[in-house]
Amino acid sequence: MSISVSIIGGSGYAGGELLRLLLAHPHVMVKQVASRSHMGEYVYQVHPNLRKCAQMKFVDPAQIESVDVLFLALPHGQAQTKIHEYAALAGKIIDLSADFRLRDGSLYEQWYGEAHAAPEWLDKFVYGLPELHRDEIAIADYVSGVGCNATASNLALLPLVKADLLDCTADVTIEIKVGSSEAGAEGNLGSHHAERANVIRTFSAFGHRHTAEVIQEMRLKNVSLTMTAVDVVRGVLATAHAKVKPGVSTKDLWKAYRAVANENPFIRVVKEQRGVYRAPEPKILVGSNYADLGFELDESSSHVVSICAIDNLMKGAAGSAVQCLNLMMGWQETTALEFMGLHPL
Amino acid sequence: MSISVSIIGGSGYAGGELLRLLLAHPHVMVKQVASRSHMGEYVYQVHPNLRKCAQMKFVDPAQIESVDVLFLALPHGQAQTKIHEYAALAGKIIDLSADFRLRDGSLYEQWYGEAHAAPEWLDKFVYGLPELHRDEIAIADYVSGVGCNATASNLALLPLVKADLLDCTADVTIEIKVGSSEAGAEGNLGSHHAERANVIRTFSAFGHRHTAEVIQEMRLKNVSLTMTAVDVVRGVLATAHAKVKPGVSTKDLWKAYRAVANENPFIRVVKEQRGVYRAPEPKILVGSNYADLGFELDESSSHVVSICAIDNLMKGAAGSAVQCLNLMMGWQETTALEFMGLHPL
Amino acid sequence: MSISVSIIGGSGYAGGELLRLLLAHPHVMVKQVASRSHMGEYVYQVHPNLRKCAQMKFVDPAQIESVDVLFLALPHGQAQTKIHEYAALAGKIIDLSADFRLRDGSLYEQWYGEAHAAPEWLDKFVYGLPELHRDEIAIADYVSGVGCNATASNLALLPLVKADLLDCTADVTIEIKVGSSEAGAEGNLGSHHAERANVIRTFSAFGHRHTAEVIQEMRLKNVSLTMTAVDVVRGVLATAHAKVKPGVSTKDLWKAYRAVANENPFIRVVKEQRGVYRAPEPKILVGSNYADLGFELDESSSHVVSICAIDNLMKGAAGSAVQCLNLMMGWQETTALEFMGLHPL
Amino acid sequence: MSISVSIIGGSGYAGGELLRLLLAHPHVMVKQVASRSHMGEYVYQVHPNLRKCAQMKFVDPAQIESVDVLFLALPHGQAQTKIHEYAALAGKIIDLSADFRLRDGSLYEQWYGEAHAAPEWLDKFVYGLPELHRDEIAIADYVSGVGCNATASNLALLPLVKADLLDCTADVTIEIKVGSSEAGAEGNLGSHHAERANVIRTFSAFGHRHTAEVIQEMRLKNVSLTMTAVDVVRGVLATAHAKVKPGVSTKDLWKAYRAVANENPFIRVVKEQRGVYRAPEPKILVGSNYADLGFELDESSSHVVSICAIDNLMKGAAGSAVQCLNLMMGWQETTALEFMGLHPL
Repeated sequence: MSISVSIIGGSGYAGGELLRLLLAHPHVMVKQVASRSHMGEYVYQVHPNLRKCAQMKFVDPAQIESVDVLFLALPHGQAQTKIHEYAALAGKIIDLSADFRLRDGSLYEQWYGEAHAAPEWLDKFVYGLPELHRDEIAIADYVSGVGCNATASNLALLPLVKADLLDCTADVTIEIKVGSSEAGAEGNLGSHHAERANVIRTFSAFGHRHTAEVIQEMRLKNVSLTMTAVDVVRGVLATAHAKVKPGVSTKDLWKAYRAVANENPFIRVVKEQRGVYRAPEPKILVGSNYADLGFELDESSSHVVSICAIDNLMKGAAGSAVQCLNLMMGWQETTALEFMGLHPL
Repeated sequence: MSISVSIIGGSGYAGGELLRLLLAHPHVMVKQVASRSHMGEYVYQVHPNLRKCAQMKFVDPAQIESVDVLFLALPHGQAQTKIHEYAALAGKIIDLSADFRLRDGSLYEQWYGEAHAAPEWLDKFVYGLPELHRDEIAIADYVSGVGCNATASNLALLPLVKADLLDCTADVTIEIKVGSSEAGAEGNLGSHHAERANVIRTFSAFGHRHTAEVIQEMRLKNVSLTMTAVDVVRGVLATAHAKVKPGVSTKDLWKAYRAVANENPFIRVVKEQRGVYRAPEPKILVGSNYADLGFELDESSSHVVSICAIDNLMKGAAGSAVQCLNLMMGWQETTALEFMGLHPL
Repeated sequence: MSISVSIIGGSGYAGGELLRLLLAHPHVMVKQVASRSHMGEYVYQVHPNLRKCAQMKFVDPAQIESVDVLFLALPHGQAQTKIHEYAALAGKIIDLSADFRLRDGSLYEQWYGEAHAAPEWLDKFVYGLPELHRDEIAIADYVSGVGCNATASNLALLPLVKADLLDCTADVTIEIKVGSSEAGAEGNLGSHHAERANVIRTFSAFGHRHTAEVIQEMRLKNVSLTMTAVDVVRGVLATAHAKVKPGVSTKDLWKAYRAVANENPFIRVVKEQRGVYRAPEPKILVGSNYADLGFELDESSSHVVSICAIDNLMKGAAGSAVQCLNLMMGWQETTALEFMGLHPL
Repeated sequence: MSISVSIIGGSGYAGGELLRLLLAHPHVMVKQVASRSHMGEYVYQVHPNLRKCAQMKFVDPAQIESVDVLFLALPHGQAQTKIHEYAALAGKIIDLSADFRLRDGSLYEQWYGEAHAAPEWLDKFVYGLPELHRDEIAIADYVSGVGCNATASNLALLPLVKADLLDCTADVTIEIKVGSSEAGAEGNLGSHHAERANVIRTFSAFGHRHTAEVIQEMRLKNVSLTMTAVDVVRGVLATAHAKVKPGVSTKDLWKAYRAVANENPFIRVVKEQRGVYRAPEPKILVGSNYADLGFELDESSSHVVSICAIDNLMKGAAGSAVQCLNLMMGWQETTALEFMGLHPL
């Protein structure tokens, strides 16, 4: 049994990864890929890895036909203005943009600086992180994507929140390091290689929009994200600094982290005493859908450092979207996401 | 139908990639992985990408049991001293080292500086590059691996040699740029990140051992390889400078290159007039088994520049080895090698 | 007027930078450079940038003769065992190692895990960061070096501490990102380029030894350093998360940071509203002795993010050492440290 | 004694480096720096390394006043249209662009695809590479800049040509690897970090414009440049493949290379049997004006590989320009160019 899918916004980085995953998906037939800026071009001219793998050309978004599942990978702000049209094309929609991640229109307005264009749709979408909403996604027709930094943050906090180990009166300070692909396929002066190579560039101390997704999903208030760009193309490392409740021990944390790893096929705990790779790091996750979690606790101060590493374009975007598709269709959750990552890279 | 395989020398980079590919191979059951330096350790402690994918530990090479196919990924020089023992363990052997790549013991001695320890075995092996020896590999019991630089060089020259376009009286000068994984998993001062990052380091102007494989397989005499290390982990780009016969045109070259691409599932021709990726480059091949070919001809001087890009650990090592396995077993040649590569990376 | 200096431990990275700076110093004559592991070799064989600039060879440390100022750039733990001998060779000593940075033997033991070998010397040394101890250094005979991560941390906190703006009851969490040169010239498996490239690797969540220098110099208790290695060779970025006292405003911070910049020739405040380089980043500081400071304040929560960028081998090691020399000798503080850094890099 | 200089085109990479060098020059007073695109901005907003070193703002090019020496660092094609105006402002002009590098208007037209706008000025300029034209530069009023790739190529060939060792009937094939700063400060999609990082990208097999400067200066005909971009910001490595005359030995080459190094303060010969840095490489030349030369000869085939490494913005642009200024003014040739480069980087 096979379904038909199309992608609107296929020329961006997340759209390209989505296309790659769907082309290799055993139960999916990719019908059309649309891109306004590249329509008429072969998809492999934009995503050169797909040469000999995909012969299709980008079509005009206006020419997208009815399909079983429609993926939207548009720049933020565009999906919300046409969501009625898109819903007419497919019974199920997975939108990778930020447009339908927040359930509360006022939260959206607070972080995105303008009113949402289709607030009545916010409730119809489920937040598309299976580790948080697996059962809801399985029965949903409309699923949002996830912010890559929000995903690394939410997964770093998940074991602590789920096991109720966090001292919620204390601040949660999340330091996030990111690669250049996070900023999207459109270059600017700051992304010019000569300016962007060799950087350790803190570009946002407070106020990154993905914070809203952490507030919503972790139900935390005193949370801040500090963003630093480093010299990799792919990868997010979130290092969350928080306080655990008095008396919480390293043993308690092991239990909490292992529980999350056991329940989720793409979560691994990395906490080694020897070797090179002792803690989570995105280097070995490039191309994979895994999220690696680790932690250290200073028992004397209850200061916990919880770490999550992901590939921003996979677990932080296209990978989670395909994982949601699998759940929505009742397929094996890991289908088309089995790539193990590369060592070395 | 499934076969059993084992790997001796599984802790190196090529061995690790081989293991990753074989773990995902639908017709293969990995029985044992041996490593003298890491025996007793979990394979994921050395190859951290395999965490949650492989629970096995490295065993002592002396404990390898009988299997259908035995892979050898030992440092050069070791397989030849024990080939009789290994042959007793498996009916089919694929050896990734340099030990059985050359057919002529004297050529081996010339380039490796010492007599071969098992010269009577040289004739039993087939050179393991399917694009050159597909039919022989299909009926072989013993298949060698390929040198990564030799592979990039041989594939760059293949269309020219096969279509008999080359002026064989002229020198063939091959400039090769390589990443740090080519030097293997054992570090040295020159591979220390602070010394190896940001390099454009010509470490061998003449005399690289892989030259012997080009001489043998392309039947060329005046060929030299110049090796330059650059700041990537994976990837080989071979740029061959040669002369075509008088009157050979760009159109003739197009025909020759397309023919090779049509006959080989992992060969692609890249020669675009626009966009970012106009010629072959290893960046988009990381993790994939493709070899991308391109060329430019100065018709006025008959100077041809032929370019081949590969991932040295895939098409240049483990990928070609698995491709050979598929041929030897009569399976689809591309099985377990479908990964398309990543964009961007 | 010119003085004679020698360096013991000149083959490491800090020693090499020190040599480079001293060779160009208008008032200094470099007499000898010692290295046990490289004695007999030309210094340019280890530090290839010095070819044609320095014709000297490394000598045996035992052959060091009397000089005006002796620099020690040995691995940690060695200077303290021979400090009596070294003091007999020179009236003034600048020791770049960690051996004499802490004033309190018990603090040393706590962080370095063993008793100090010459505790009676701890009081004789001044901590060698001019921004903290300019006047004491000017009259000192014995000056210690500084930890590079400690320097970035101390300078990030200096404006806040000096202006008494910090809420000292709250934790100070310092996230530090570092390049590969920080680990020294001796490679290991983790520093192998193929393993070290492309990393975002949190290698220490708590307990980094440089913490002791922050505790001592800033007189803070609740301070922790979390260390993450990223893919650059040189550079440290320290991002300190702290709380300011109630009512402290962005305007107050501007005043405090500008005051520190005005008093110190190598401190700059970087806080731009436009352009690529809006906050401190080590990319543009490679080779320079500047420390760039920046900050952001969330007035609603009093959460301040204070950032300091340095070149770990310059301001974090050899540069500060030469700056101390200048002060000790009564020369212009910036002598031989005028290099402005490179753009782009 | 001090002279006044101004720069038109100071916001590009070469212009920025020029400004940095001139600010530190003991005999120079920088009067004005002009940039059409950035006029009104502080120079440190574009070149952030100059913060606290230069308080000046970019002025409108039309507001440049009379000075002793005028530097032009404009995009190619602009200087030739206004050279009369510029000549009215200063008695001496150093133009870094390609506009006045070629002596022959028809050679210009052949390689640049259009007629030169001021062909009568071509003869007034001296080609600004001191290693080729030291004496002429010393008495010139108008000096051109140099192409960075041409400089690496010309210096790689210089010892061979000067000692008349080259077999001029054979092709000279020059393989050049370059960093991202060579393409200038204006980004494009291909220079976007996510697309440009990790590349080994052969972007020009034949026909690079700098070839014309090699043809002119080396008086060679059969010369081709093949350009490959690699993942560094600064640096050019030119690897020239040529034939020496029959009987020429390694000893002859040593003599020729040493002679060039002895005559030129910024030329060094690098040819070591041990250590990490055995041949020229740009990594250690960043920020320095040195050009490192090396070679290997296959005596059996007379195939010589001659290598030159430079920093494209220094010896390949701003450094050579300042070196020319020193010669034109009768100052020490190395003034303001003493920076030794960094190890490691």
